[in-house]
Amino acid sequence: MVDNNTQPSVPHVVIVGGGFGGLYAAQALGKAPVKLTLIDKRNFHLFQPLLYQVATGSVSPADISSPLRLVLNQNKNTQVLLDRVTDIDPDRQRLTLGDRTLSYDTLILATGVKHHYFGNDQWQSIAPGLKTIEDALLMRRRIYGAFEAAEKETDPEKQKAWLTFVIVGGGPTGVELAGAIAELAHSVLKNDFHHIDTTSARILLLEGMDRILPPYAPELSARAASDLTQLGVKVQTQTLVTQVTEGSVTVRQGETEKLIPARTILWAAGVKASGLGKVLHEKTGVALDRAGRVMVEDNLSISGYPNIFVIGDLANFSHQGEGERPLPGIAPVAMQEGKYVAQWIKRELRGQTHSPFRYTEVGSLAVIGENAAVVDLGWMKLTGFIAWLTWVFAHIYYLIEFDNKLVVMVQWGWNYLTRGRGARLITGEDFLLTITPENLDTTEDMPLPAIKN
Amino acid sequence: MVDNNTQPSVPHVVIVGGGFGGLYAAQALGKAPVKLTLIDKRNFHLFQPLLYQVATGSVSPADISSPLRLVLNQNKNTQVLLDRVTDIDPDRQRLTLGDRTLSYDTLILATGVKHHYFGNDQWQSIAPGLKTIEDALLMRRRIYGAFEAAEKETDPEKQKAWLTFVIVGGGPTGVELAGAIAELAHSVLKNDFHHIDTTSARILLLEGMDRILPPYAPELSARAASDLTQLGVKVQTQTLVTQVTEGSVTVRQGETEKLIPARTILWAAGVKASGLGKVLHEKTGVALDRAGRVMVEDNLSISGYPNIFVIGDLANFSHQGEGERPLPGIAPVAMQEGKYVAQWIKRELRGQTHSPFRYTEVGSLAVIGENAAVVDLGWMKLTGFIAWLTWVFAHIYYLIEFDNKLVVMVQWGWNYLTRGRGARLITGEDFLLTITPENLDTTEDMPLPAIKN
Repeated sequence: MVDNNTQPSVPHVVIVGGGFGGLYAAQALGKAPVKLTLIDKRNFHLFQPLLYQVATGSVSPADISSPLRLVLNQNKNTQVLLDRVTDIDPDRQRLTLGDRTLSYDTLILATGVKHHYFGNDQWQSIAPGLKTIEDALLMRRRIYGAFEAAEKETDPEKQKAWLTFVIVGGGPTGVELAGAIAELAHSVLKNDFHHIDTTSARILLLEGMDRILPPYAPELSARAASDLTQLGVKVQTQTLVTQVTEGSVTVRQGETEKLIPARTILWAAGVKASGLGKVLHEKTGVALDRAGRVMVEDNLSISGYPNIFVIGDLANFSHQGEGERPLPGIAPVAMQEGKYVAQWIKRELRGQTHSPFRYTEVGSLAVIGENAAVVDLGWMKLTGFIAWLTWVFAHIYYLIEFDNKLVVMVQWGWNYLTRGRGARLITGEDFLLTITPENLDTTEDMPLPAIKN
Repeated sequence: MVDNNTQPSVPHVVIVGGGFGGLYAAQALGKAPVKLTLIDKRNFHLFQPLLYQVATGSVSPADISSPLRLVLNQNKNTQVLLDRVTDIDPDRQRLTLGDRTLSYDTLILATGVKHHYFGNDQWQSIAPGLKTIEDALLMRRRIYGAFEAAEKETDPEKQKAWLTFVIVGGGPTGVELAGAIAELAHSVLKNDFHHIDTTSARILLLEGMDRILPPYAPELSARAASDLTQLGVKVQTQTLVTQVTEGSVTVRQGETEKLIPARTILWAAGVKASGLGKVLHEKTGVALDRAGRVMVEDNLSISGYPNIFVIGDLANFSHQGEGERPLPGIAPVAMQEGKYVAQWIKRELRGQTHSPFRYTEVGSLAVIGENAAVVDLGWMKLTGFIAWLTWVFAHIYYLIEFDNKLVVMVQWGWNYLTRGRGARLITGEDFLLTITPENLDTTEDMPLPAIKN
């Protein structure tokens, strides 16, 4: 037993960000002879791959969130700080947290990405993206609120706009949102309204490239498109969004532009690096890519600062594979990077040598709806029910790794059997005020359907 | 089979409010020969008795909310309107919903109560009450945020204020909140912080009367107080709150006043009737009691308007028992009143006679913590584990009545076995800004505990 009370030689490792990269690094360092500080501005790790299910009302925020203190409370070398890093001083090895500073010996930055509107930040309030719990609850409010507003609306044109859902971006998040909204309209909510037929809702998935899920194998893109069409989604590729306003989206397809009246516009199109990437660039001169991601060395450190690592979505790792395409911004990459850096630090402390980081391909998954998904394992491609089961088990496996999320399984099983949506409550103050301004211009009594005895 | 397409003689029953009273009335009228409209400003029924568990992080909002459309979608005579009633015209039998109007033949008002600060509405933003999901999430943010702020605070006095939780009001809600916060401090969060000892938190339950749970039998009040003390709650009776400020509460005990520094003050002290009671009073002349509740006739209608009924917490029913004390504002009363009015309407349609409403006592329950509760059945009093089991089964029974809330049982079972809190995430934008202003006045590096290998 070593008495570490004076901690003469114990290095301080600071991890910023409790996402997949930061949390996997923290866990892998939990028994290492370091003192470890994990800083996050939220008190929970968020299982982002299921955030679209919060947005569409299948699960509750807590079902996909694990309290960071709970996950890490067995690691006696670890403290969790609920705070925001505002500056980095790489030469004095200090971080600024508001008015405080915190020194580090080794720094791991894992603050991820945020939405990107390609220079049209004014679209953000109209077309929310999906990165945080608050984003997901806002989307949920918009989606369920649109059906409610349509139910009240008596003008057929306006009603149609309320029943038009536009999802911008055909990556996994866009595909998952479109599929889930289609299931709401065609199945879950089918019997719940009197004045509207929810199955008449239009769900448009817009993608700028020539196919959805562009990084996947072409046959999987095709299958995903046909599965979505089956569910009631209209997939429109080679379609660029040129304008977003409250109530409409304008798209360009080839030479033609058209305006689509739509009250619910969801953004799944682009991301850019978190602001700490830029801070790091200014302070160290490290290069950033076009999305603001930090260009990292082959061991995930940055040039000239061997004690600063950048991992996960914030990092651009281009030392692997053909043409040095960066690794994709997905959870498995972040997890492996987090574990690698932890290993690197432990080997360094023992005076051992290192090899460069290599990502081990584990495949890409996107779920389309109940019983339908596409899985690209590289050496094998799965579709349909088998792919969906693979998706379910992969997600349950990762979910229960930190925090036994028994409840999610029960909820999914229950939803699957009943085709219900347990978490469809619309929350947030004054919701009514946000959907009704133009619905209240009628003084007519509302018609009622015939009564069946 | 009657062809009701023209609906010549089908009366229109309008229910305002989807709480226990309104929803039970709606369900009991679901097969009756009426057209039925249920109006609520929210799209879900809230199981309010468990709201304190949302506030303390045991369950998620959706676990105790049932979508009104889902609950009622089998009743073909029923439509749900998501709207707010702003006025009542009892002579023309019309309601105003924003700019629309809606005619009724029979009206059932069941809009409940809201917080009451006894003329000190400025306390509301400091000491939130517990009536809505948003209230509960705000409380959750305050409670968990207080531990986080204490963890960061270096001034011992300020830290103590962050670790002082004051619950104003010793009724069931106050008792339940105090017990649950004590369990958080003494058990759930015990191992999660480095700089504070959560078991040193002070949880004060303040009650103006001479005992907590005043409507219960005195021996149950005494048992509840001793169970709470056991859990770490300091119960202070005959204690009046005279001032609430950001950071302190001033109390008077007999002749002495004292100021208690406390950053978390929760209001469980008083309620007043929803605003529609006052509207009804102005339009019909019906009497209100001091809390603004509507004085109802012995059939729950109001004087002079036999087609207007008021039920649940909004009603003051004083036609039963000794001294004509009004029935308490609890779920079983509202449920029975809802069913009675539905029955009354059905009998009226059949030309049958009525008896006055009689409340059948089903007992009062308050839970103190895991394994401890008090149950007053009138003819029998239960305490301890047996009472707690009774409480659990009574709540599960009511929860699953509408909407099979399997998940809550799993969550409870899981929490019970692990003593965990699955739903302790702090949500809401810019949470950090709300807790940190005075914590960031130190530039010291944070101390870390010794490392155990």
